[in-house]
Amino acid sequence: MKKLLLAAALPLLATSASLPAQNPAQVAQLRDAALTDQVAWDITEGLTTEVGARMAGTPAEARARAWAVAKLRALGFANVRVETFDMPVWVRGEERVELLAPFPQKLVVTALGNSGATPARGIEAQVIGFESIQALEAASDASVRGKIVFVSHNMSRTQDGSSYGDFGGARRQGPSIASRKGAAGIVIRSIGTDYHRNPHTGGQNWAQGVRPIPAGALSLPDAEQLQRILKRGLPVTMRLTLTPRNIGIRQSGNVIAEVPGTNPNAGVVVAACHLDSWDLATGAFDDAAGCGIVAAAAKRVGEAGRPLRTIRVIWFGAEEVGLFGGIAYRDRHRDEKHAVIAESDFGADRVWRFQSNVSTAAQPVVDRIAHALAPLGIVKGATDEASGSDISVLTAIGFPTLELSQDGTRYFDYHHTPDDTLDKVDPAQLQQNVAAWTAMLAIAANAPVEFGPVPTRAGQ
Amino acid sequence: MKKLLLAAALPLLATSASLPAQNPAQVAQLRDAALTDQVAWDITEGLTTEVGARMAGTPAEARARAWAVAKLRALGFANVRVETFDMPVWVRGEERVELLAPFPQKLVVTALGNSGATPARGIEAQVIGFESIQALEAASDASVRGKIVFVSHNMSRTQDGSSYGDFGGARRQGPSIASRKGAAGIVIRSIGTDYHRNPHTGGQNWAQGVRPIPAGALSLPDAEQLQRILKRGLPVTMRLTLTPRNIGIRQSGNVIAEVPGTNPNAGVVVAACHLDSWDLATGAFDDAAGCGIVAAAAKRVGEAGRPLRTIRVIWFGAEEVGLFGGIAYRDRHRDEKHAVIAESDFGADRVWRFQSNVSTAAQPVVDRIAHALAPLGIVKGATDEASGSDISVLTAIGFPTLELSQDGTRYFDYHHTPDDTLDKVDPAQLQQNVAAWTAMLAIAANAPVEFGPVPTRAGQ
Repeated sequence: MKKLLLAAALPLLATSASLPAQNPAQVAQLRDAALTDQVAWDITEGLTTEVGARMAGTPAEARARAWAVAKLRALGFANVRVETFDMPVWVRGEERVELLAPFPQKLVVTALGNSGATPARGIEAQVIGFESIQALEAASDASVRGKIVFVSHNMSRTQDGSSYGDFGGARRQGPSIASRKGAAGIVIRSIGTDYHRNPHTGGQNWAQGVRPIPAGALSLPDAEQLQRILKRGLPVTMRLTLTPRNIGIRQSGNVIAEVPGTNPNAGVVVAACHLDSWDLATGAFDDAAGCGIVAAAAKRVGEAGRPLRTIRVIWFGAEEVGLFGGIAYRDRHRDEKHAVIAESDFGADRVWRFQSNVSTAAQPVVDRIAHALAPLGIVKGATDEASGSDISVLTAIGFPTLELSQDGTRYFDYHHTPDDTLDKVDPAQLQQNVAAWTAMLAIAANAPVEFGPVPTRAGQ
Repeated sequence: MKKLLLAAALPLLATSASLPAQNPAQVAQLRDAALTDQVAWDITEGLTTEVGARMAGTPAEARARAWAVAKLRALGFANVRVETFDMPVWVRGEERVELLAPFPQKLVVTALGNSGATPARGIEAQVIGFESIQALEAASDASVRGKIVFVSHNMSRTQDGSSYGDFGGARRQGPSIASRKGAAGIVIRSIGTDYHRNPHTGGQNWAQGVRPIPAGALSLPDAEQLQRILKRGLPVTMRLTLTPRNIGIRQSGNVIAEVPGTNPNAGVVVAACHLDSWDLATGAFDDAAGCGIVAAAAKRVGEAGRPLRTIRVIWFGAEEVGLFGGIAYRDRHRDEKHAVIAESDFGADRVWRFQSNVSTAAQPVVDRIAHALAPLGIVKGATDEASGSDISVLTAIGFPTLELSQDGTRYFDYHHTPDDTLDKVDPAQLQQNVAAWTAMLAIAANAPVEFGPVPTRAGQ
């Protein structure tokens, strides 16, 4: 089937020989030149150093937007602008765990997003431990009521990051389950894979009608310490202090910049990342690097000659705390013609796979992209699945989507922890990302086919 | 020379064939059996789990002593006792660094031992950065006065840990130099080799007549962030908040346990570690593992048959904050006959080297020990140098000393940070330590020669 499609597509592709950055040799040249890129590093270094942590809806995120506008203009992008939106803001307070019995000691905790608050003096309760949220679900309400629930899991590293989906339920559903059962609070084993005393925060939303309770994450060494103590079989008493606050509605915004195309009717190609970070770190992996990668690649394609389609770089706001930026963009731009969308939001390690979810007619273009990526050690993955974080709300309404999958083996060592800092970024792998994005954008922005409609599939 | 000594010693060694654990085959058997040891792990796991952090002079260290006495008795040691002593106690308070300009953001800091305190609201001052304490020394007082000094360094990993000596001056002397020059405070790049947001605390003493100032350490990612910001060339303003307190004189103590020897006149063999830890972590590497290793090895030698000499296991108190336990022991026991002393206080990674500083007459015994250690992959190092932390005050007054050097390559990733937790201990490497100590103690406790006097050397 692939061969047939390739053969059918050849005449179409041949017509594009005069377009810039469309000829395979030109794409290869652009791709290889990007292996010495400095722009992505400059953006990653600049944003993490000159702004630092930039939690959505805070003054730090506003400084990040100002920084972004200035940077994108300086890089030569057109139509640089901020599209603002309002959102509810939750901010971290004090966070402490102290075991009072049987072995008095402090553990390291951080609040999960939207955690309820304890009084300033904390709450004291017996701890009941569960190996998984399934075990918590199965427990009687009576056994949990009034206690502080501890939920563990056995997440491992995966190259594609899929274990985050499998095990992240402890964070995403655990607090609501615990609250429903009458727990006084919950602490989970961080959704992460590193053994450092840096707990992993992250978003969670209370299920409908559920009362917010204090909800935190212990670092892995602390979670295993608590497990060892629970295994002794003596009653374990914890004082949990988490004093986050909901501070009401604040402004956030998406920063948008463009490489204008020659044909306004051809639809825009979106190259996205998110500008906000959690508050615990400077968000180098998550997601300053992504912003560096997509901007550097778009700039390179634009400098090679005006593309057929406009490339729209979007640095989304407020991703971490609930995709508010993606939703605001969708609501504002859903009727605008989008050719194809993609996002970089999985760190800065090498791209190892290319996936797509586009029209049947565009499969030859998918193959051309795959062929252009192969020298970077990138394999072709699914052609019926592609995703991104902010753009997931666009993929969900049928927007054709491309994906460059980054190696996630060490991503969950740093994800949402204080450790997500510039030193974790490997400049050579960052350059490989820019090269991959440059090749993909060059082909996608100039391809003389439509990427949509995405075929409707059974079960979707 | 070595061969001559060996020949001379042979008759002496031959007389010992009837002593337990002295025959090379018996030593080899004891050594190899120790490669499946569980006692060292049990002690390391138990002390770090059931006591946790145990800062000298605090109730936690007192709980550690009670735990230690019960454990050592349960293991069958004789003469288990605590020798108490008094010491001044400094305790940590709040610790925060906030950059106010040019790029507002928080950095992660921890106070160094004996740090002076800021007011509760912190101090605000301009930051002046130096690449080394040599550069700080060379600066004019006028350039430093009233500022917060930042001192960096370029410590690397070393197997023998010698870089700690070379670069630790930033912590040990930096604060006094900064105070002498009129600085308002000092933050150093942590004396460590890891890139996690866990700063390294550690002891430092104010030079004679120097006024204590607030003195902290930034994690490496934070130190490099500050360096990047300083390199921008704009004035950098910091709010530094450190509120530690000196709480006066408190009690600490050394826990002592023995394997009684057959000859009370033969002198004791000391196998030491330290029981206290810094307050930031459970002190698995530093030094619960050391206590596990020496106790497990002494127990094994004792169970093989009563040795010639008494093996005295000492779990020193108050090492981290100034060797108070070692000094108290020296003052109390200096006139007692000690055959030879050794300490394990460099983590739990494999022993790679054996060093000694003993009499010329004991060189054949040194060779026997080296021979017994060789199958564990341990090389023979210096015969005129051996050391340990607490026991350094005994080595300094001429006590014969043996040393099993542990691999320090990753030791300064965890040293004095919140990351020094049980998960860092590799059970197999811990067992190799026990095997090495078992062989060394078996030979040393039964050797029919005197380990002293240590030859006086030029320059010492």
